[in-house]
Amino acid sequence: MLRIAVAPSGFKECLDAEQVSDAIRTGISRVAPRAVVDSVPLIDGGEGSARLLARATGGHLVPVSVTGPVGEAVAAHFARFDGTAFVEMAAAAGLSLVPATHRDPGRTTGRGVGELISAALEDGARRIIVGCGDSGICDGGAGALRALGAEIRDERDEPIGEGGIELLRARRIDATGLDPRLSDVDLAVAVNPRNALCGPDGVARRYGPQKGATPHRVEQLAAAMSHWAGLLAAHSGADPAALPGGGASGGLGAGLAGVLGARLESRFDTFLASTDLEQRLRTADLVITAEGAIDASTALGKIPTEVARRAKRHGKPVIALCGTIGPGADTSYEHGIDAITGILTGPTALPDAITRAPELIADATARTLRMLLLGTTLRAA
Amino acid sequence: MLRIAVAPSGFKECLDAEQVSDAIRTGISRVAPRAVVDSVPLIDGGEGSARLLARATGGHLVPVSVTGPVGEAVAAHFARFDGTAFVEMAAAAGLSLVPATHRDPGRTTGRGVGELISAALEDGARRIIVGCGDSGICDGGAGALRALGAEIRDERDEPIGEGGIELLRARRIDATGLDPRLSDVDLAVAVNPRNALCGPDGVARRYGPQKGATPHRVEQLAAAMSHWAGLLAAHSGADPAALPGGGASGGLGAGLAGVLGARLESRFDTFLASTDLEQRLRTADLVITAEGAIDASTALGKIPTEVARRAKRHGKPVIALCGTIGPGADTSYEHGIDAITGILTGPTALPDAITRAPELIADATARTLRMLLLGTTLRAA
Repeated sequence: MLRIAVAPSGFKECLDAEQVSDAIRTGISRVAPRAVVDSVPLIDGGEGSARLLARATGGHLVPVSVTGPVGEAVAAHFARFDGTAFVEMAAAAGLSLVPATHRDPGRTTGRGVGELISAALEDGARRIIVGCGDSGICDGGAGALRALGAEIRDERDEPIGEGGIELLRARRIDATGLDPRLSDVDLAVAVNPRNALCGPDGVARRYGPQKGATPHRVEQLAAAMSHWAGLLAAHSGADPAALPGGGASGGLGAGLAGVLGARLESRFDTFLASTDLEQRLRTADLVITAEGAIDASTALGKIPTEVARRAKRHGKPVIALCGTIGPGADTSYEHGIDAITGILTGPTALPDAITRAPELIADATARTLRMLLLGTTLRAA
Repeated sequence: MLRIAVAPSGFKECLDAEQVSDAIRTGISRVAPRAVVDSVPLIDGGEGSARLLARATGGHLVPVSVTGPVGEAVAAHFARFDGTAFVEMAAAAGLSLVPATHRDPGRTTGRGVGELISAALEDGARRIIVGCGDSGICDGGAGALRALGAEIRDERDEPIGEGGIELLRARRIDATGLDPRLSDVDLAVAVNPRNALCGPDGVARRYGPQKGATPHRVEQLAAAMSHWAGLLAAHSGADPAALPGGGASGGLGAGLAGVLGARLESRFDTFLASTDLEQRLRTADLVITAEGAIDASTALGKIPTEVARRAKRHGKPVIALCGTIGPGADTSYEHGIDAITGILTGPTALPDAITRAPELIADATARTLRMLLLGTTLRAA
């Protein structure tokens, strides 16, 4: 009897991890109806995480209207369970909240993230986890800090404006007005530790373009992050440029760490603790993970390679399903993924692929399992 | 040491079978560099067959200008080897020769096929094989017969016009003017024996739509084929409606059989005799076949299932690669194909997929082989 651990990510702007997991289970049941399937849908802190986490923990969502990334009100929320509030950054400042015509990470703000933290304090949370991922901002956490009562002042001691580009005018951080309740709360930020604030592979250069920055803007923002790192260092006495995950969500990690003393945690350590992934991997004969795209970035801390690394500690075979196999996908073979398969069946436009995703994932799972099981009959190479 | 037989079809309007075979070999070499690959690129008598057959037999192509399917001259050819001429129907009346704006199989003619046969006679061929497949016509072979000197007459004993729809006005077949050299030649038509002239699954209904017929036209043509079957039966004393392959190339099979006494042969029996497929299958550990699309029609005599049926006689595992996995693809599992894989890596437009086909096929082969080899390590289900 085959035992399969199904541990997918969601497919961004398409299906959440539970839906992907369900589709994979459907595909397995067609080819190996007697297989035992252990589903462990995974979140990475990004878009949709609060909802999934609330469901997984038996908690609930608290709706809050906040300032969105381009200044308009957006309907956001945080998840509440036990004494904890989980603040999904993407619910207040995610890239999908930035209209295509306004995609300039030099101007967008993470103010709404601070407003969500404030609402969580108001709600009595004793522990707050801010989940990073899928952001549309690059303001070094300044917007969030200001929403919580801090001020960033220019050379005339006036407050600067919103957006990362304004940080170039900043001269000092004024934390005197910070919400006093922050000192009584355990504040953690769940980050991808590979995201750095500064440098050639810093947040501006790595993610600026996909957030809509022109090459010129990318360089301005890289300079702004360097300058901001200096102010944070002067304020806190610690160098945020060296902080793993300081670049998370456009520098939100570094900002909350440097000014609020927030602890940056590897998002997988944070979220996997709430799952039984480790146990499921240990007993599995085969591990199936999945993500919308497998490409060069997958090896840089995305869910499929995080699952694969853990599966390999137990010597388990890992296959990855995805919507798109992009450039550099082969690098994930070096991180524990044994084989990759795409879900598309023919020339397809993206909207069609999204609409048909559950069926495509189920069908691809069935085809892949047939291929694998055929392999079991093959004379070993 | 893994021994792999690679026996693909061409990908229609994209790559010929040799190019597909080369791309698969490239993919194999990346994952299993020590595998022994036996390439057996296959033809089915359709588009491109004459060129491949001439190459495979050490023969040559004879260029001939003929009447195309919409009446304009087209540069066609037949292949010549030993005492044989191979007339590729598609070179004179293929669907790709019918401009998109003229795709009405009620009006197109196979006259050029008769002109090619005539040129082959002129060239001294003692054996002529007409290869069917990829036609853009549905004239029951009437056009080809008229080019060879026969006449189809209406109720006033006048010749009817070109195109299948004219057959509805036909009253008798007049073979008195036929080229007398035809009686001295061995004439065979290489057909898919599953193609019937008449009935609910006859050529008009099965292939009319893809040749551009409206639903109304399909029914007219189905009626025309029934009427034409009656005239052929009266002329020859044999019922063409019951002839396996009589529907090949819009009824060309039935027409040449009924009026010229041509022998209809299964195209695979004809073409596989010129390959060492049987021997390659016998020694293989794994068989890889391929076609542009795998769908419900694959099981109806297309190359992948013909290869798979033969491979299964030797108990060999068979996988099929394809550009598009279409509706009904799963039916091919009942005909010896063990697993199917698509070549696309993400949302793609057809022209892009065609341009990148060699790379996509090589990459997909490599991914698939990884999956299969991973299977060899899997605890059997």
